[in-house]
Amino acid sequence: MENEKKIPYKIYLEESEMPTTWYNLRADMVNKPAPLLNPGTGQPMTAEELGGVFCEELVKQELDNDTKFYPIPQEIRDFYKMYRPSPLVRAYCLEEKLQTPAKIYYKFEGNNTSGSHKLNSAIAQAYYAKKQGLKGVTTETGAGQWGTALSMACAYLGLDCKVFMVKVSYEQKPFRREVMRTYGADVTPSPSDKTQVGRKILAEFPGTTGSLGCAISEAVEVAVTNPGYRYVLGSVLNQVLLHQSVIGLETKAALDKYGIKPDMIIGCAGGGSNLGGLIAPFMGEKLRGEADYEVIAVEPASCPSLTRGKYAYDFCDTGRICPLAKMYTLGCGFIPSANHAGGLRYHGMSSILSQLYDDGFMEAVSVEQTSVFAAARLFARTEGILPAPESSHAIRVAIDEAERCRESGKEETIVFGLTGTGYFDMVAYQKFNDGEMSDYIPTDEELAKSFATLPEMN
Amino acid sequence: MENEKKIPYKIYLEESEMPTTWYNLRADMVNKPAPLLNPGTGQPMTAEELGGVFCEELVKQELDNDTKFYPIPQEIRDFYKMYRPSPLVRAYCLEEKLQTPAKIYYKFEGNNTSGSHKLNSAIAQAYYAKKQGLKGVTTETGAGQWGTALSMACAYLGLDCKVFMVKVSYEQKPFRREVMRTYGADVTPSPSDKTQVGRKILAEFPGTTGSLGCAISEAVEVAVTNPGYRYVLGSVLNQVLLHQSVIGLETKAALDKYGIKPDMIIGCAGGGSNLGGLIAPFMGEKLRGEADYEVIAVEPASCPSLTRGKYAYDFCDTGRICPLAKMYTLGCGFIPSANHAGGLRYHGMSSILSQLYDDGFMEAVSVEQTSVFAAARLFARTEGILPAPESSHAIRVAIDEAERCRESGKEETIVFGLTGTGYFDMVAYQKFNDGEMSDYIPTDEELAKSFATLPEMN
Repeated sequence: MENEKKIPYKIYLEESEMPTTWYNLRADMVNKPAPLLNPGTGQPMTAEELGGVFCEELVKQELDNDTKFYPIPQEIRDFYKMYRPSPLVRAYCLEEKLQTPAKIYYKFEGNNTSGSHKLNSAIAQAYYAKKQGLKGVTTETGAGQWGTALSMACAYLGLDCKVFMVKVSYEQKPFRREVMRTYGADVTPSPSDKTQVGRKILAEFPGTTGSLGCAISEAVEVAVTNPGYRYVLGSVLNQVLLHQSVIGLETKAALDKYGIKPDMIIGCAGGGSNLGGLIAPFMGEKLRGEADYEVIAVEPASCPSLTRGKYAYDFCDTGRICPLAKMYTLGCGFIPSANHAGGLRYHGMSSILSQLYDDGFMEAVSVEQTSVFAAARLFARTEGILPAPESSHAIRVAIDEAERCRESGKEETIVFGLTGTGYFDMVAYQKFNDGEMSDYIPTDEELAKSFATLPEMN
Repeated sequence: MENEKKIPYKIYLEESEMPTTWYNLRADMVNKPAPLLNPGTGQPMTAEELGGVFCEELVKQELDNDTKFYPIPQEIRDFYKMYRPSPLVRAYCLEEKLQTPAKIYYKFEGNNTSGSHKLNSAIAQAYYAKKQGLKGVTTETGAGQWGTALSMACAYLGLDCKVFMVKVSYEQKPFRREVMRTYGADVTPSPSDKTQVGRKILAEFPGTTGSLGCAISEAVEVAVTNPGYRYVLGSVLNQVLLHQSVIGLETKAALDKYGIKPDMIIGCAGGGSNLGGLIAPFMGEKLRGEADYEVIAVEPASCPSLTRGKYAYDFCDTGRICPLAKMYTLGCGFIPSANHAGGLRYHGMSSILSQLYDDGFMEAVSVEQTSVFAAARLFARTEGILPAPESSHAIRVAIDEAERCRESGKEETIVFGLTGTGYFDMVAYQKFNDGEMSDYIPTDEELAKSFATLPEMN
């Protein structure tokens, strides 16, 4: 207890203690994640095939299951210093409020203008594009966190940035759009008449408000048809989890500094970029048999890829133009309900996390939207941070576990990832504050229908 | 230069290095700020008179020109630990971009959900209200930063919080309103039918969208007519500058840690809460003859209270119900143009800062809106933080000074206050991005008209 008091509210690493390498969890996995397949041939995608869409160095990182540590280039480390290390916060006030013997910590990734952890990979991807001598990058964005992060990284490096923003978001989230424009990005509502695929969709469905799948298709088309451009993606891919390992490495360094060993690590999971990054070094220890941790992925009950999905090869996009990935998926034709955690509305899950889950190294739970917002509000009032709806999924389960500790009297140490802030999600909060938010759980029949959209090869 | 490299991008104090007292700059002033006057009698407001509106301890702090240090109660220090110490950032990237030999530092107060420094005084005022056994507090808010900060503090302490929000803001800034509601505040668009003064105004001007002056009147009426309630204010008052001294104390401690002595300290100034807090310990040294610093207040050209105002007794509110304060003022009838820096649209200036300015201890400059947003955008792209329009006034002048250093080759050390983030100000950024923002400078004739609204006693 004496020792206990010495842990500050916020543990900040010194600049000299920040990670100098990313950690590639795949190097420690016995069962490697399944390779991406070419949908035409059914064969693993080659570096050459991927190189038409992605930067060379990123293709290398994507395919490399063996190199354990990647040095972080000095330029990226310098950029990280502008907003990292992020604090590991001891949730003293939340513990007090819950009257729990559990010790709760959260790694807060929201203290930067993009509002989330997405910036960790955005700067890396933009850096390699710049280094390759490219003019710019293209991407899609739904909720807008990834598009904002990429805009910031490109502005810093003087790289052109073309963002296709799902039309309904473009119209309903004008502030997100303006942040991107302030950073100099070219933001186009999708579907647009700038691309062949966009014009085709507009002709077929004149009134459509767009979808992530369509925005991906447009972004990829622009990347492959414009010399000097490549496409970048903010989650799901192995390379993204590699960059996001900086979250877990910092978390572990901060815990180690105070001799703290967590019992449980909790993170929200959409495509898996945050969870994969947060757990990386801990999971590495677990895979190597050096330590044991309970690892929990939290997903929305409305989009339950791990808890109710199938482990199968599937398209990464609803437009069915991207490579096939083996993952827990609800089927690329799954249409998520209007869950407000936009960042978690993805039909699949990172191949790395899918393999780990299938091998029994981690658990998954799904939670309902209104209980997530109740946790978010309690957290905001107690810890002084208004969390993003995505992050609040992890908060919900952390609170549930802390309450379980109160009942059992166990002094467990809980670490969770607080991926971002909710400043651009106030429409959702308003619905919750007004009692107008509802839950939605897909029926077995609905899931059966979306499973039918899985490619035939399975 | 060797030593130079050792200064990190962000200087964070240890928890043990955080200030344990607030510093009362008035104790070191030879010419004390003029007292508040009772508008009815023309006599200085007594503690008893002020006690009907403000909490007892805060009245004591307001009137105390002598006590140099106030211990910060442990409960407030614990709350501060949730979001403080705030970082003192070395703007390496901005220096590089400007190719200036100047060394630029900024104290960033925006890393909390209220988005600004306002929380430093909100928690103090709420704490004393709670300690006095009150049920709740009332206040007004325009731009919404103060209302958000107070809502957060009240939620933390379990205190009722009634916010009167200028109707036009309530309607145009629904997200700010929702943050306050998420923190449990009762937010009423003003003018409302909840108060006598509100009903009177509504009857006279049925279509009015409200004003800060009217919102103050409603908040004060509710405080004085409801047992267990007091009114609180987020700027201008001596007590607020006392609490905000935590900004300057942390800044000075961080600079001292690395042996850095600033040549120049720059802050934006509306009511003066940020600038007064930031400069406090530096100004103290200057007043005591121990050191010299150039201190610059930056105000909008559209609301130039220091640079074009009169030093006179004036009402603190446009409704003319509050006490009279001696300050640099444009006249309480001054109606600021639609400048987007809502937090700087105040006709007067803190009595402490007004006295210091009148005595020649600080300078003031005014800057135009479009040049402020140009600086904001450059800063966002270079330093990765999207600043509030208010804060960007200080950025503008810091850049101007750094460019002057580039011309002269002088290696000056510039410190400025970055009071907050602009996430809720994207409508203004949009106007700027679209080239639709214009400047406005009141004519001498317009100012003569508003000076005519000064009380007759002057």
